[in-house]
Amino acid sequence: MNKQNHLSQVRVVLSHTTHPGNIGAAARAMKTMGLRHLYLINPRHFPDPQADAMAAGADDVLRDAVVCSSIDEALQGVVFTVAMTARLRDISIEVKTPREAMPLLLQQAATQPVALLFGTEMSGLTNEEMGKAQVLVSIPADPDFSSLNIAAAVQVMSYELSVAAQSYLPSTPETHPAPHEQVEGFFAHLEKTLFEIGFLTTQNPARLMQRLRRLYARARLEQEEINILRGILSVATEYNTRLRARYQQENPVITKHPDVPKHQ
Amino acid sequence: MNKQNHLSQVRVVLSHTTHPGNIGAAARAMKTMGLRHLYLINPRHFPDPQADAMAAGADDVLRDAVVCSSIDEALQGVVFTVAMTARLRDISIEVKTPREAMPLLLQQAATQPVALLFGTEMSGLTNEEMGKAQVLVSIPADPDFSSLNIAAAVQVMSYELSVAAQSYLPSTPETHPAPHEQVEGFFAHLEKTLFEIGFLTTQNPARLMQRLRRLYARARLEQEEINILRGILSVATEYNTRLRARYQQENPVITKHPDVPKHQ
Repeated sequence: MNKQNHLSQVRVVLSHTTHPGNIGAAARAMKTMGLRHLYLINPRHFPDPQADAMAAGADDVLRDAVVCSSIDEALQGVVFTVAMTARLRDISIEVKTPREAMPLLLQQAATQPVALLFGTEMSGLTNEEMGKAQVLVSIPADPDFSSLNIAAAVQVMSYELSVAAQSYLPSTPETHPAPHEQVEGFFAHLEKTLFEIGFLTTQNPARLMQRLRRLYARARLEQEEINILRGILSVATEYNTRLRARYQQENPVITKHPDVPKHQ
Repeated sequence: MNKQNHLSQVRVVLSHTTHPGNIGAAARAMKTMGLRHLYLINPRHFPDPQADAMAAGADDVLRDAVVCSSIDEALQGVVFTVAMTARLRDISIEVKTPREAMPLLLQQAATQPVALLFGTEMSGLTNEEMGKAQVLVSIPADPDFSSLNIAAAVQVMSYELSVAAQSYLPSTPETHPAPHEQVEGFFAHLEKTLFEIGFLTTQNPARLMQRLRRLYARARLEQEEINILRGILSVATEYNTRLRARYQQENPVITKHPDVPKHQ
């Protein structure tokens, strides 16, 4: 395989980084391991002289860094995202070790962009941000002191990726995951439909949507599958609309829009 | 094996470190990976507020750091030393990768102290210092930009050591896939609903169901997720059931079961 081709598909995405020195140190860490593409979501200070100082020669990575205003912008076109978490959460999205996850990332990187997603220094990634990823990775650390510096975490992940790329045997990816924006389009459509048919109410839909996100994250949806699922959603809505129209027709005295039956 | 016993035999030795911030960052990197024993050979500034700031909670490692005036003092009692080098030198001492070397270090650490030896920021270790080591280790890096920050190198080595020390797979939250019959129950419910809402017709539904099966097979559905999905399916058709009941109630003369609206 061509190692460099695979690594050139990898984006390192840092969300809401507080200290510019960490951005510079992360750029240096990336470059030592052959990674070039840095994406910054709303960094507090950037560009910044501290970032330049800590980059120590990786100034090209900083210069080419893409500053984004949202995670969706940073993940535009990305087919596989690995998000970092310091904690092992009680959720059913897969949490892998770096050594388990990097070959998967490389496999997808053979043809299309992939991302490594890092949260803020203090609180890591939000649940919403993690919901955008297909795999969560936790760097095994001392349970009593598990807080790696963000640039140190970038170094470990870049290193694992680079080592994995050295020994990586090319194989065809089993699946062809749909790009990020299509997956998000599906989730938006799903949520809208679940409201429409009365499954979701305003009481805490976020938790249920998160649960569904995890399920479909594990499945790594393909484009054709998204087409099928959205087709189902469209038909379900049409069906619902038709039934409602019929209901209104048959109950003309009721002028108030009838409530969609609530799920008990 | 008792991981902590082995790691407690490991000394991280930094020779002639120039920037105190790097000492603090190295202490933090060590502590995240369960290493505690820091030895400093003639540091330029230590103790130092910059070291404290970068330690970010690993102040105990700094406080207990042993400041030495020579490498022999730092390696007193050590039975096995791994020295870091950025370059592959034309010398006859072995140069290994971190992944090759850390199991060797651990093996020796079972009973007696071992050391990981790091040189200065600018020039690394002297030949004399490297001569004290049993094994040289080079972290594989981009040949065009191979200079890892010293604390980043400490992080990578500590991480490799910690991973090597795990004789077990890190505990990831186990998924609890639902039993076969529940998954089949979901697929039957899904198919029935897709017919009912008019998404599936009699023309070759098998192929589409197969596609959906594959998608959910990849996700390895859990029981709770099946409950959610079947809840959605029930709500999607509930409206129709209610409407039908009402329709029959309001039109008692019609004995024939009314058709479900068909998808056009």
